[in-house]
Amino acid sequence: MYSFTNDYNETAHPKLLESLLTASTQKNSGYGLDTYCEKAAEKIKSLIQSSQSAVHFLPGGTITNLAFISHILRPYQAVIAAQTGHIAVHETGAIEATGHKVITVKCEQGKLTPEVIKPVLEEHCDEHMVQPKLVYISNTTELGTIYSKKELQELHAFCQKHHLYLYMDGARLAMALSAAENDLSFSDIAKLTDAFYIGGTKVGAFAGEALIINNNNLQADFRFTMKQKGAILAKSWILGVQFLALLENNLYLELGKHSNVMAKQLNDILSRYGFTFTIAPQTNQLFVNVPDTLVNSITQHYDLLPCGKPDSQHSCLRFCTSWSTQQHDIDRFEKFLQTVCQK
Amino acid sequence: MYSFTNDYNETAHPKLLESLLTASTQKNSGYGLDTYCEKAAEKIKSLIQSSQSAVHFLPGGTITNLAFISHILRPYQAVIAAQTGHIAVHETGAIEATGHKVITVKCEQGKLTPEVIKPVLEEHCDEHMVQPKLVYISNTTELGTIYSKKELQELHAFCQKHHLYLYMDGARLAMALSAAENDLSFSDIAKLTDAFYIGGTKVGAFAGEALIINNNNLQADFRFTMKQKGAILAKSWILGVQFLALLENNLYLELGKHSNVMAKQLNDILSRYGFTFTIAPQTNQLFVNVPDTLVNSITQHYDLLPCGKPDSQHSCLRFCTSWSTQQHDIDRFEKFLQTVCQK
Amino acid sequence: MYSFTNDYNETAHPKLLESLLTASTQKNSGYGLDTYCEKAAEKIKSLIQSSQSAVHFLPGGTITNLAFISHILRPYQAVIAAQTGHIAVHETGAIEATGHKVITVKCEQGKLTPEVIKPVLEEHCDEHMVQPKLVYISNTTELGTIYSKKELQELHAFCQKHHLYLYMDGARLAMALSAAENDLSFSDIAKLTDAFYIGGTKVGAFAGEALIINNNNLQADFRFTMKQKGAILAKSWILGVQFLALLENNLYLELGKHSNVMAKQLNDILSRYGFTFTIAPQTNQLFVNVPDTLVNSITQHYDLLPCGKPDSQHSCLRFCTSWSTQQHDIDRFEKFLQTVCQK
Amino acid sequence: MYSFTNDYNETAHPKLLESLLTASTQKNSGYGLDTYCEKAAEKIKSLIQSSQSAVHFLPGGTITNLAFISHILRPYQAVIAAQTGHIAVHETGAIEATGHKVITVKCEQGKLTPEVIKPVLEEHCDEHMVQPKLVYISNTTELGTIYSKKELQELHAFCQKHHLYLYMDGARLAMALSAAENDLSFSDIAKLTDAFYIGGTKVGAFAGEALIINNNNLQADFRFTMKQKGAILAKSWILGVQFLALLENNLYLELGKHSNVMAKQLNDILSRYGFTFTIAPQTNQLFVNVPDTLVNSITQHYDLLPCGKPDSQHSCLRFCTSWSTQQHDIDRFEKFLQTVCQK
Repeated sequence: MYSFTNDYNETAHPKLLESLLTASTQKNSGYGLDTYCEKAAEKIKSLIQSSQSAVHFLPGGTITNLAFISHILRPYQAVIAAQTGHIAVHETGAIEATGHKVITVKCEQGKLTPEVIKPVLEEHCDEHMVQPKLVYISNTTELGTIYSKKELQELHAFCQKHHLYLYMDGARLAMALSAAENDLSFSDIAKLTDAFYIGGTKVGAFAGEALIINNNNLQADFRFTMKQKGAILAKSWILGVQFLALLENNLYLELGKHSNVMAKQLNDILSRYGFTFTIAPQTNQLFVNVPDTLVNSITQHYDLLPCGKPDSQHSCLRFCTSWSTQQHDIDRFEKFLQTVCQK
Repeated sequence: MYSFTNDYNETAHPKLLESLLTASTQKNSGYGLDTYCEKAAEKIKSLIQSSQSAVHFLPGGTITNLAFISHILRPYQAVIAAQTGHIAVHETGAIEATGHKVITVKCEQGKLTPEVIKPVLEEHCDEHMVQPKLVYISNTTELGTIYSKKELQELHAFCQKHHLYLYMDGARLAMALSAAENDLSFSDIAKLTDAFYIGGTKVGAFAGEALIINNNNLQADFRFTMKQKGAILAKSWILGVQFLALLENNLYLELGKHSNVMAKQLNDILSRYGFTFTIAPQTNQLFVNVPDTLVNSITQHYDLLPCGKPDSQHSCLRFCTSWSTQQHDIDRFEKFLQTVCQK
Repeated sequence: MYSFTNDYNETAHPKLLESLLTASTQKNSGYGLDTYCEKAAEKIKSLIQSSQSAVHFLPGGTITNLAFISHILRPYQAVIAAQTGHIAVHETGAIEATGHKVITVKCEQGKLTPEVIKPVLEEHCDEHMVQPKLVYISNTTELGTIYSKKELQELHAFCQKHHLYLYMDGARLAMALSAAENDLSFSDIAKLTDAFYIGGTKVGAFAGEALIINNNNLQADFRFTMKQKGAILAKSWILGVQFLALLENNLYLELGKHSNVMAKQLNDILSRYGFTFTIAPQTNQLFVNVPDTLVNSITQHYDLLPCGKPDSQHSCLRFCTSWSTQQHDIDRFEKFLQTVCQK
Repeated sequence: MYSFTNDYNETAHPKLLESLLTASTQKNSGYGLDTYCEKAAEKIKSLIQSSQSAVHFLPGGTITNLAFISHILRPYQAVIAAQTGHIAVHETGAIEATGHKVITVKCEQGKLTPEVIKPVLEEHCDEHMVQPKLVYISNTTELGTIYSKKELQELHAFCQKHHLYLYMDGARLAMALSAAENDLSFSDIAKLTDAFYIGGTKVGAFAGEALIINNNNLQADFRFTMKQKGAILAKSWILGVQFLALLENNLYLELGKHSNVMAKQLNDILSRYGFTFTIAPQTNQLFVNVPDTLVNSITQHYDLLPCGKPDSQHSCLRFCTSWSTQQHDIDRFEKFLQTVCQK
């Protein structure tokens, strides 16, 4: 059984493991106050061309989201997210557990736009309702789509005008920024968001996300919140070490690109056999409409994430590639599909 | 300017004020441990025919909802409410502030049914999502509609089957139980819910709601939660006194009925002049589709709650009657409407 | 059985009840946006000579404390309070329930000083510990003692220097400001604190506290927090009405003074019979060392609050007078004590 | 500069790194539902002789404490901890941030006993105060002391009698159970606590703690809380892998023992030179009273944790050894001390 279930099913990229071993023979300061984290932070600031940003390393996506969001909101302020947003659906109410409502809006392709946010602001007009304050987006989105530069600029301008913070969940930022259709750069994102994170877990790290707070007003005391939420590993340098490796020779984007390229091959193969997609693929996630008659044959040999039923005769199955997907995995799948579809 | 804005714009029914004055000349135990609260609780248990229920008096609706809900849920459990539910919209995220997600569902007439809840249970299938545990309904609903006995029985059976608690917000329970179409009794509600509250603020009390916890497993230690949330008035007997008066000679339902009767007259008058309703009126709230050409003329003389725009040429205005609405207020409105509509 | 248990065992002062009746025959705007609250707020601002302060009316002390404190603190910030502080002991963890640690310090007479706070600041030196940010004091303290002007000035200067907020719980502010030894005025307190509340419940109101936020930076959006915590009564004008009455002709301080005078008489009587005090009385609370041999005889006829055992042969009983204590209650107690002590 | 600052300043024990590398070449299920975690859990249950216990792997101590404690307490329930307890002092109010008060008690050697807990239960007598429900202890304590079997039995019996949960923070459990004076076994702890954790971070893991919930009533749905708090790593198998290695051939206790042996040597050396200890050393932490005249000379060459001033002429410095301390590190220190003390 081969797994296309997700992009976090192998421990870590060899380069990162290697770096980790090298760092194993020396004593380091605890809690992220070590030289690895310091260097990695500097490297990130240089990469995003934003020397005044603050960089922190946290062990996972959910804890990054809940720590940052609870750090900056007042108790009565709320988050606006897409109905499909990760914090809205798949984090067990982590944001609400810190006291904040997540207001969800329906939107195309998992992407927020000024048009869908505007009505939320109009409805929330007085103190009987929460005060929308933070716009949460993901790039790639949970549907594998990406934001264009123009879309992000419009969102940013809208947020500025309405005194909303803009925060980007970058669990799969590598895939977004290396997508064929992408026109955003790291420095664009640093300019156009109040904060974002560069995801490591889904891009070859065994754990670790780099949170970047661009808005100076939101930077103070964040380490207090990190510690309070259990988000500071005692041996945080293991996160710094990995990010240093990821940032060397453009490895991070290379891994993202590799994931996308593997997905594009799957996309081509599936298309050739007449499969359609619930949503047009842009990165490493393919939401494939699989005829119910084929579901069993396929899932007996491939681990895939079931994502509902687009119609009465199809099931949506997610194919997800990663930095660790190999060319021969794709080739083997092609042969497999040939067999299955010929029956 | 006359106000049909809401049903809580006059201090208290004369009978309640009278009782309050009588109780003013003696010393009482604090924090709800007085003889008034004790007697009122006994009277309520007798009224609802449920001697094993626990009764508590709290100063308002929002604090009753947040205290009870936070008392019974585990941190990862969530509430299911109608998209129009009071806790979902008009309590400034009070439930989320205690750590719990409110999952909202679209529904007809502001009423939850097994059909609309079932998909929520199906979607929330593992620990990456909150665990739906409490169904929150209001009777009357926020749209002025009421639950029939059959509807409540079905909901109760569904909740029992799926290990969900069922809680009824009874801010306007008097209006619900005295509605022309109502077939529910207090004792039905005590049997069919885990808890509900009998609202005083909107039915002639200056403040005060009586929370009734029917499910024995949910009763323990509720006074700890009340105290922690600031929900125990030092002089809580002023709530007991009022409920004693409300429960005497069926005053509570009489006031509800009066509110409904006044609304029915408004309904008839408005209908005669061709006005339609956003939702068919059942109790003391009328959601009236007012032609935009008439909005100004009417709101210059009457305080009304604006409730959006049903179409491009109408605005929805809420007319709300109460225990304090007088026959001559209705008559005067009829004359006023005649003038306005003749122009 | 006569009760000296506390100062909130009678409903409301006749002047307040009268005002309430007068206000009962008219329609008012809800949620504190009425003319009574508006006038009462203006009257308070004039009394405290601080036109830029913000005034809010809340139904009780615990909810006032928790709403204000949770409104102004960031998630990792903590409160410093005396070990005897009301929020530290008698509010069922209300502050912690909003996420904030209460750091308690031992202190003389229930009063905080720079000397006892300084070590707390020194110990809390990095992000592994909470960040002390708010100093909570009560005047009168929970032990019935009062702050002198000099003491408050020193505390204020210290807080300013160390970027700490200073908040005064004024549940018994009337007794403090009318104490024989007091040299503080309302306007002093407005100048020397970031916020304080004028307590109504213990000074003749059936419920109601007036929170005054002097620090402009802490005023924004407080009504959101109030609503979220269930601290806005729908008919909030009943609080405004009472404060208007309390502020007329200096009634508020008169009631405080009356409480103190009654206590002073008890103090003299008890002293004459050789009773001593756990703490030197300054206001309306007497913490009396009662020989264990007399405890039963006394508590058979008088409701009193037991407050521990100062030594193996005495029990501390609190005698508490109030606006409603009558001269003949004192006289009767004197006769009673004569009988008891002669046995 | 050599560091005796703490026991978590080197990445991971070679055996663990090796295991990690071996596990790197295969695909695993996410979120702790993999075979490594499964096997490690089985191994732990066998080790503690408690097949009905539930085992979970979390990335750090603070998040383990906050997740477990918030999972089992009702909103008004509180934790009892030593004044020196880690959750009371060094976790930035993590427990309070989940809504729960931490009641601290003074105690000898950082250890709780029935005698010091009893008064807390007596004081917390009604709903105006929090309800003490969980006793939090650490073994080793924050002062490096250990619980004897008799002490733990007495504490357990007391907790059972008073319906209190007993939870042991085992960040340094390896050092406790391998201490010369220890008479507790893993299975004793499983029998005598409701839950405890086996700490990995301070015993050779790069991250990871194994929480063991012995009380069946507290086990349900814990993964919901873990996910909500951000405590489930996507690649949780990296924790399982490490614990498998730690549990093989008794490595875990061997590493604890090594830490203790190294500390004992330091202890002997320091004693020979006349140094005394703030608290009698039992495990790998030495709290040494260093004459102020020597502090600079020592801290110029050794990183040590300053722990206050025991008297006007001494400073307390913590020497902490670990699995990675080498014999030659100790020998070198001895020579160094000789030089320093001869001056």
